[in-house]
Amino acid sequence: MGLTEPKVVSGPSGYVLEDVPHLSDYIPDLPTYHNPLQDNPAYSVVKQYFVHVDDTVPQKVVVHKDSPRGTHFRRAGPRQKVYFESDEVQAAIVTCGGLCPGLNTVIRELVCGLHHMYGVTRVLGIEGGYKGFYSRNTIALTPSSVNGIHKRGGTILGTSRGGHDTNKIVDSIQDRGINQVYIIGGDGTQKGASVIFEEVRRRGLKCSVVGIPKTIDNDIPIIDKSFGFDTAVEEAQRAINAAHVEAESVENGIGVVKLMGRDSGFIAMYATLASRDVDCCLIPESPFYLEGPGGLYEYIEERLKENGHMVIVIAEGAGQELLSASMESDKKKDASGNKVLLDVGLWISQNIKDYFAREKTLAITLKYIDPTYMIRAVPSNASDNVYCTLLAQSAVHGAMAGYTGYTSGLVNGRQTYIPFYRITERRNNVVITDRMWARLLSSTNQPSFIDVEVSNKDENGKNSLDQLADGHCLEGTLVDENGSISTAIAC
Amino acid sequence: MGLTEPKVVSGPSGYVLEDVPHLSDYIPDLPTYHNPLQDNPAYSVVKQYFVHVDDTVPQKVVVHKDSPRGTHFRRAGPRQKVYFESDEVQAAIVTCGGLCPGLNTVIRELVCGLHHMYGVTRVLGIEGGYKGFYSRNTIALTPSSVNGIHKRGGTILGTSRGGHDTNKIVDSIQDRGINQVYIIGGDGTQKGASVIFEEVRRRGLKCSVVGIPKTIDNDIPIIDKSFGFDTAVEEAQRAINAAHVEAESVENGIGVVKLMGRDSGFIAMYATLASRDVDCCLIPESPFYLEGPGGLYEYIEERLKENGHMVIVIAEGAGQELLSASMESDKKKDASGNKVLLDVGLWISQNIKDYFAREKTLAITLKYIDPTYMIRAVPSNASDNVYCTLLAQSAVHGAMAGYTGYTSGLVNGRQTYIPFYRITERRNNVVITDRMWARLLSSTNQPSFIDVEVSNKDENGKNSLDQLADGHCLEGTLVDENGSISTAIAC
Amino acid sequence: MGLTEPKVVSGPSGYVLEDVPHLSDYIPDLPTYHNPLQDNPAYSVVKQYFVHVDDTVPQKVVVHKDSPRGTHFRRAGPRQKVYFESDEVQAAIVTCGGLCPGLNTVIRELVCGLHHMYGVTRVLGIEGGYKGFYSRNTIALTPSSVNGIHKRGGTILGTSRGGHDTNKIVDSIQDRGINQVYIIGGDGTQKGASVIFEEVRRRGLKCSVVGIPKTIDNDIPIIDKSFGFDTAVEEAQRAINAAHVEAESVENGIGVVKLMGRDSGFIAMYATLASRDVDCCLIPESPFYLEGPGGLYEYIEERLKENGHMVIVIAEGAGQELLSASMESDKKKDASGNKVLLDVGLWISQNIKDYFAREKTLAITLKYIDPTYMIRAVPSNASDNVYCTLLAQSAVHGAMAGYTGYTSGLVNGRQTYIPFYRITERRNNVVITDRMWARLLSSTNQPSFIDVEVSNKDENGKNSLDQLADGHCLEGTLVDENGSISTAIAC
Amino acid sequence: MGLTEPKVVSGPSGYVLEDVPHLSDYIPDLPTYHNPLQDNPAYSVVKQYFVHVDDTVPQKVVVHKDSPRGTHFRRAGPRQKVYFESDEVQAAIVTCGGLCPGLNTVIRELVCGLHHMYGVTRVLGIEGGYKGFYSRNTIALTPSSVNGIHKRGGTILGTSRGGHDTNKIVDSIQDRGINQVYIIGGDGTQKGASVIFEEVRRRGLKCSVVGIPKTIDNDIPIIDKSFGFDTAVEEAQRAINAAHVEAESVENGIGVVKLMGRDSGFIAMYATLASRDVDCCLIPESPFYLEGPGGLYEYIEERLKENGHMVIVIAEGAGQELLSASMESDKKKDASGNKVLLDVGLWISQNIKDYFAREKTLAITLKYIDPTYMIRAVPSNASDNVYCTLLAQSAVHGAMAGYTGYTSGLVNGRQTYIPFYRITERRNNVVITDRMWARLLSSTNQPSFIDVEVSNKDENGKNSLDQLADGHCLEGTLVDENGSISTAIAC
Repeated sequence: MGLTEPKVVSGPSGYVLEDVPHLSDYIPDLPTYHNPLQDNPAYSVVKQYFVHVDDTVPQKVVVHKDSPRGTHFRRAGPRQKVYFESDEVQAAIVTCGGLCPGLNTVIRELVCGLHHMYGVTRVLGIEGGYKGFYSRNTIALTPSSVNGIHKRGGTILGTSRGGHDTNKIVDSIQDRGINQVYIIGGDGTQKGASVIFEEVRRRGLKCSVVGIPKTIDNDIPIIDKSFGFDTAVEEAQRAINAAHVEAESVENGIGVVKLMGRDSGFIAMYATLASRDVDCCLIPESPFYLEGPGGLYEYIEERLKENGHMVIVIAEGAGQELLSASMESDKKKDASGNKVLLDVGLWISQNIKDYFAREKTLAITLKYIDPTYMIRAVPSNASDNVYCTLLAQSAVHGAMAGYTGYTSGLVNGRQTYIPFYRITERRNNVVITDRMWARLLSSTNQPSFIDVEVSNKDENGKNSLDQLADGHCLEGTLVDENGSISTAIAC
Repeated sequence: MGLTEPKVVSGPSGYVLEDVPHLSDYIPDLPTYHNPLQDNPAYSVVKQYFVHVDDTVPQKVVVHKDSPRGTHFRRAGPRQKVYFESDEVQAAIVTCGGLCPGLNTVIRELVCGLHHMYGVTRVLGIEGGYKGFYSRNTIALTPSSVNGIHKRGGTILGTSRGGHDTNKIVDSIQDRGINQVYIIGGDGTQKGASVIFEEVRRRGLKCSVVGIPKTIDNDIPIIDKSFGFDTAVEEAQRAINAAHVEAESVENGIGVVKLMGRDSGFIAMYATLASRDVDCCLIPESPFYLEGPGGLYEYIEERLKENGHMVIVIAEGAGQELLSASMESDKKKDASGNKVLLDVGLWISQNIKDYFAREKTLAITLKYIDPTYMIRAVPSNASDNVYCTLLAQSAVHGAMAGYTGYTSGLVNGRQTYIPFYRITERRNNVVITDRMWARLLSSTNQPSFIDVEVSNKDENGKNSLDQLADGHCLEGTLVDENGSISTAIAC
Repeated sequence: MGLTEPKVVSGPSGYVLEDVPHLSDYIPDLPTYHNPLQDNPAYSVVKQYFVHVDDTVPQKVVVHKDSPRGTHFRRAGPRQKVYFESDEVQAAIVTCGGLCPGLNTVIRELVCGLHHMYGVTRVLGIEGGYKGFYSRNTIALTPSSVNGIHKRGGTILGTSRGGHDTNKIVDSIQDRGINQVYIIGGDGTQKGASVIFEEVRRRGLKCSVVGIPKTIDNDIPIIDKSFGFDTAVEEAQRAINAAHVEAESVENGIGVVKLMGRDSGFIAMYATLASRDVDCCLIPESPFYLEGPGGLYEYIEERLKENGHMVIVIAEGAGQELLSASMESDKKKDASGNKVLLDVGLWISQNIKDYFAREKTLAITLKYIDPTYMIRAVPSNASDNVYCTLLAQSAVHGAMAGYTGYTSGLVNGRQTYIPFYRITERRNNVVITDRMWARLLSSTNQPSFIDVEVSNKDENGKNSLDQLADGHCLEGTLVDENGSISTAIAC
Repeated sequence: MGLTEPKVVSGPSGYVLEDVPHLSDYIPDLPTYHNPLQDNPAYSVVKQYFVHVDDTVPQKVVVHKDSPRGTHFRRAGPRQKVYFESDEVQAAIVTCGGLCPGLNTVIRELVCGLHHMYGVTRVLGIEGGYKGFYSRNTIALTPSSVNGIHKRGGTILGTSRGGHDTNKIVDSIQDRGINQVYIIGGDGTQKGASVIFEEVRRRGLKCSVVGIPKTIDNDIPIIDKSFGFDTAVEEAQRAINAAHVEAESVENGIGVVKLMGRDSGFIAMYATLASRDVDCCLIPESPFYLEGPGGLYEYIEERLKENGHMVIVIAEGAGQELLSASMESDKKKDASGNKVLLDVGLWISQNIKDYFAREKTLAITLKYIDPTYMIRAVPSNASDNVYCTLLAQSAVHGAMAGYTGYTSGLVNGRQTYIPFYRITERRNNVVITDRMWARLLSSTNQPSFIDVEVSNKDENGKNSLDQLADGHCLEGTLVDENGSISTAIAC
């Protein structure tokens, strides 16, 4: 039996629905039940509470009068019929990967949503990430045990990275009678969830596998933005402010701040846009070079001469090709120092210091700040708290309604169910030929580090075609999905 | 000459564009110019930078396979041709009404956007609100004079409420040679802007009149959410936390927090959802009563017996009909105390104290917190900073492109231009038969205060039909617009 | 048997020690034990850990070459011999009166201090203040149950104000076998503790009664400053900032902030000194008047004309004589509004508004902020956390060493034991003929509201003699004790 | 002409006054003037405003009945006679060394104090530290130019470290007619001030040279604590919290936080005491070792097995001897990596990781946080703001009164003038045989890393005698001055 086939439905005017799997796809004759929300006094007055079976949300919302309607996703929310009885449900929650503000809020709201909306009392916490399914005891989660956790950073369940054994996990799911699995994690975790779903489906288990996308880097595609992102950008301001104060207080002061972003520079970009104190923002998507005309050193020198100080923000994944090259040459001389050099913030700080020490054009003072763990560990702010609540409740509604193999996600401001393959097939990146990046360039006045000739050539090449296909602003196509990072921050 | 006619364009499958006025509507043969952004190094590599003339954004994004496409708004952004030369522009900025986090950021970004993107150097600040057009001197605004203002609360231009003389304002616009007016303010201010636009048009002036919607209460319709709202909800948490600590520390402790919201309870609702420490949230949209079964007093008594303490959040406009009734009877006895009683927070606190003193069922301790001015006066947080930036830049792009008589606003996560009449014709309210309010009821467990019989009757009545027409979740219609308050907070 | 006599010891050069009672004063032949700290690995290397029996701390530290040495207090700290065995101790902790940042930290450190330093495992929490001794069950407090409480505001034990029955309390102490009572509370609470101590002594119980002074107003005499005061001043800044932003943003804007301080204006004074945005600070110790030359209205008018806005800080106990007078006259007309008018902040705001409405000299906009409960409810900051730790540990060392009937307090930067009667005999006030107040006047430029003639006369009168006796800066006397509010803030 | 002789005055009962130099010591027949404060309306009602000529403050305040009175310092404050006329004064302010919260507040209050109290209008800012005296232009400082600077971190004057030419500085002082120099800086800066004072005196200039001690590490002796210290400890909590959250969220998680403290571990010690989340605190004063029984690795392993996670705080100067040893051996292999290794936080993190990778006993996850620049760059909190105000005003009063060659400092809660040599002769350190450190050991349960045998031997050795002489708690001596770091934190 192969992988689950995508469920795609077409309609008039180019309408396409990329639907999510359902337990009834592979388990025949599943009974359905009356949704207990109908008896909940809080909901009983809400006559139009339930989501219509046909509700969908378009992926692209910048449209032309006569453009095709394009891809849609199923709208999240409660259904009139559910596929689980309250006392039948045995839910499990697991958090995987790095910390992100809001993890505890999502856990809390899954537990409270299941309990208060659907009367589900059996919710297990899996400790220490995926591995916890088979290597650790579970803990019982109740509304009172999770009551105040949203005010604390981190995850009460603990987390871990890396390898796990899908079969052992599904064994554990089967053995413990778990029939709803909520998996909170990033890119790799969602891929893992997808594999778990396939195995659950292969075994024909009545068990919904639900992903909740977590990525402080905001690098998950399709969705508007990931939870915790706003909080992270807020906290990043503190480090940028400090760098600015330090830089301003000395002659030729340079403040360097390293922010999260292995593959995507969203935090660096938005923190730069929000702060206004940054003179240069370096991200993985925009290659740069150090030496020569149009290079970073030249820009630093100009800026210091003009202004007396400057602030540089660098995403952790920026300049990796330079770093690799540098390490290659270092290796020939010496292997021992390399580990430290892998930190791009330390690396670039050292390079800038070395350059000015060597060139003797300016006596600089450089201060380097790495606030990464201070950002990740804060509790989520109010807007992320509300976001996490809706995300968790949407996830619960979907599982109760029998959907499975989906990620709960916000698309153009609406909660939707997105099939796993659309979440994991690629990564969300800053599109540097897009307007948001132009805005940043315009605000910092930094060089684009783009060789114009190459850039023109690229337009006819593979990379830029890919980017176009991904949908940024172009005559005749619809819209840039990258602009959709949030209602507040779209183009 | 009458009011400007709405510009409505229809298309296939029920597509409707509610377009905004343009200077060329009433001034023939206006010359156009090359957009200077094309020469800006930051933008020159962005090949698809300019917004296509046909780009529009739908008002409703929950759709069915075969539903009509409905209302759209023109997408904001830079155009290839502009209607002003850089050195021709004389812009003016004015802030009106109450304070809101982000005012200074919007001012800053209008000035910097005009300057850095379009080379406009003449920007005037009008001091003290609308009246400042004719009663005060203007101040010159430059990128350096506005550089750090986004880190401060309030508005550097000052503000005022209330009456103004449209003719004197337009005289001042004409006399000073102002040809772009940016008006930041709420409901009433946008109505004023609409009248100013009509007068400018009547006189045939080449002057773009642009509104930027400001309302800490989030009560402006169509747009996803207003700037400063996230910051306000964040700050409101502090007061709720304090009320919770106070209530918890004494026997039968009650913490009462009054939040902003004259007509719309959004801040109260989202602060309650974000905090999780609130037992009862009272908003203008949801009438409540004090005495008798299902009333507030009964609920308080139950909650205290159960839990030992409770927190009540009340929006300033809640319970006004009760308050009026109470004041009527008071007036007969005494007129002098009424001013104080107009504060619903003080009023309800006193009533609760009096009730329990009278009934002697419980010895309560009530602590009342009014954080209003502490919330309004904080600087905007990072996400509001980015939001204000895009809003200001969109406003500038539209004016430069010759559009006028519009409000710059976020619709489904995209910057759009909305005709004034759509912004001012009604107010955005919490729809209490909608899911977001059901969520709140479910989280606080408070009574719905809705007489079920009445509620059922209403469904066939005018009010509830209006609500349906506004679009909340219903078979066959499109979607709830109230859910669209922000990506993070939609249903 | 009468009240305990003060234990006063004299020495050379005018040295006086005001000592505290000891269990052995009234219980003969008490056995002593080896202090278990000597076996604690953390302390065993500290050879000089124990406090010498003769260590005392002077009340006054500004001295002359030949001045008498004056009053001293016994230095707090561990003694080599203790009067309780670890497993004999049954401690109880109670918190009384209003909230203050740091209550939970003191509770935590009493529990942890008893446990970690002296191996005491039986610590009871008395819930809901004094009354809890006889009306509620106790709760067991352990290091793990109090582990994270210092990060939360309020008191986990709950609190209450007002009447209590000393005999019932001592009955409860006797019945439960409590032999160390830690009483955290203000003025009235310490008086209660004093009476409890007398009764315990009268009954001949081996039970140490220990006070820990709590007053957010800083109105307890002798001690440098009370815990929570720094945190409160810090939080008060937020309200003052908001008032400043509101005032600045409108023409003739006035921001009024009411701060705590029924009898003592310390929070208002220090918040004003720390903020620098305040134009007028009104405290209970400095009478003021509204009308006429040199009055508040005149000053407001001048300040607005000069500056366009102003900020007024008023302590809750300021102007009570004006308020009473005003209420007298109001009463004749109407009794119903009075409760509300008792709030001096609302009262003065209304009066200022009425004055300018009446006089029509200026159209003012006044914003009133009462941050009281938001200040009281925050967790203690880092410096208060350390302070609470030392205070709690000192209290524990004293009780273990058999001392009783004392308050643990900081005098000139050293932890001491102070007999109850010195704490309760009078209240600490801002001395308005002292330098700290002069500093404030100089910083705000507000009128002194002091009729110079009266002031001169006063110097020879009772009030000012009292002040001199209390020790503020004068030729020939020693020092101002009021200046000693903290090392950081003394004159 | 040699160095200025200490001015020491003796009195009865062992009273000693270590006085500060005065302009009249070397300039005969200086005229004096009436103190303009006497005409200041704010001060005129304060009859006892002026400090008595005999007021002094003892260095030690834990005393015995018959102990000698010991060293005293001159009390700071205004004198009735001043040695400068208002329009004669040409003051200069310079900030040197690293950033510290409160620098701008001190600058502001020097300017405002001179202006408002003494009518001095000519105040120069020296930019960029000592070197600015001769290499940069000065800037004029006025009350309005410094008005809001206390709300910003850093120093508006800029700063620098390192070498300067005393003669050029005094030339500049002489050439510019500067007659009051306020020098804000640490250890080295105060030494520089002392040399400048000697040169000024040698040249016979009527110029007061005043030091204001600045050290975020709190390593300046005699004074209670340095400004900015409270703020720094507060900020350090944020990093410790984050480390705790990160450590708790993974299995065998270790959070390592490096805090400031090259030679003195005060910030690390107080942050540890305030936070309660730290399991091990390593400071320069307490040597430790890694391997073997009683070593750090063993403790980490125990702690992880017991608790599952741990937090380590390390002062930047801790373990330098280990670091040097390690670098010695590294050097043989490779010189290039050393710069990076000089950071003890990175070094110890790497060593712990390597140890557990090598030993394979536990699979740890270590997160390293270096918040140094984020701590230094924050604005001062409220209590530091008040402290800075008094410090600056005291400095001004002294200079106006003709004193010179002194540091303004807080001793036992009173502002005093301390001769330079007492400030610079040694450094303030954490005394690890003292009670505060015992408290910390007791709170963290970390090993003392002290070989008991050695410790006993040391008692009779030089080091421990020195420590005794510095005054910590011992039978027969007076008191520990290190405990006096602040009222809140003394023993």
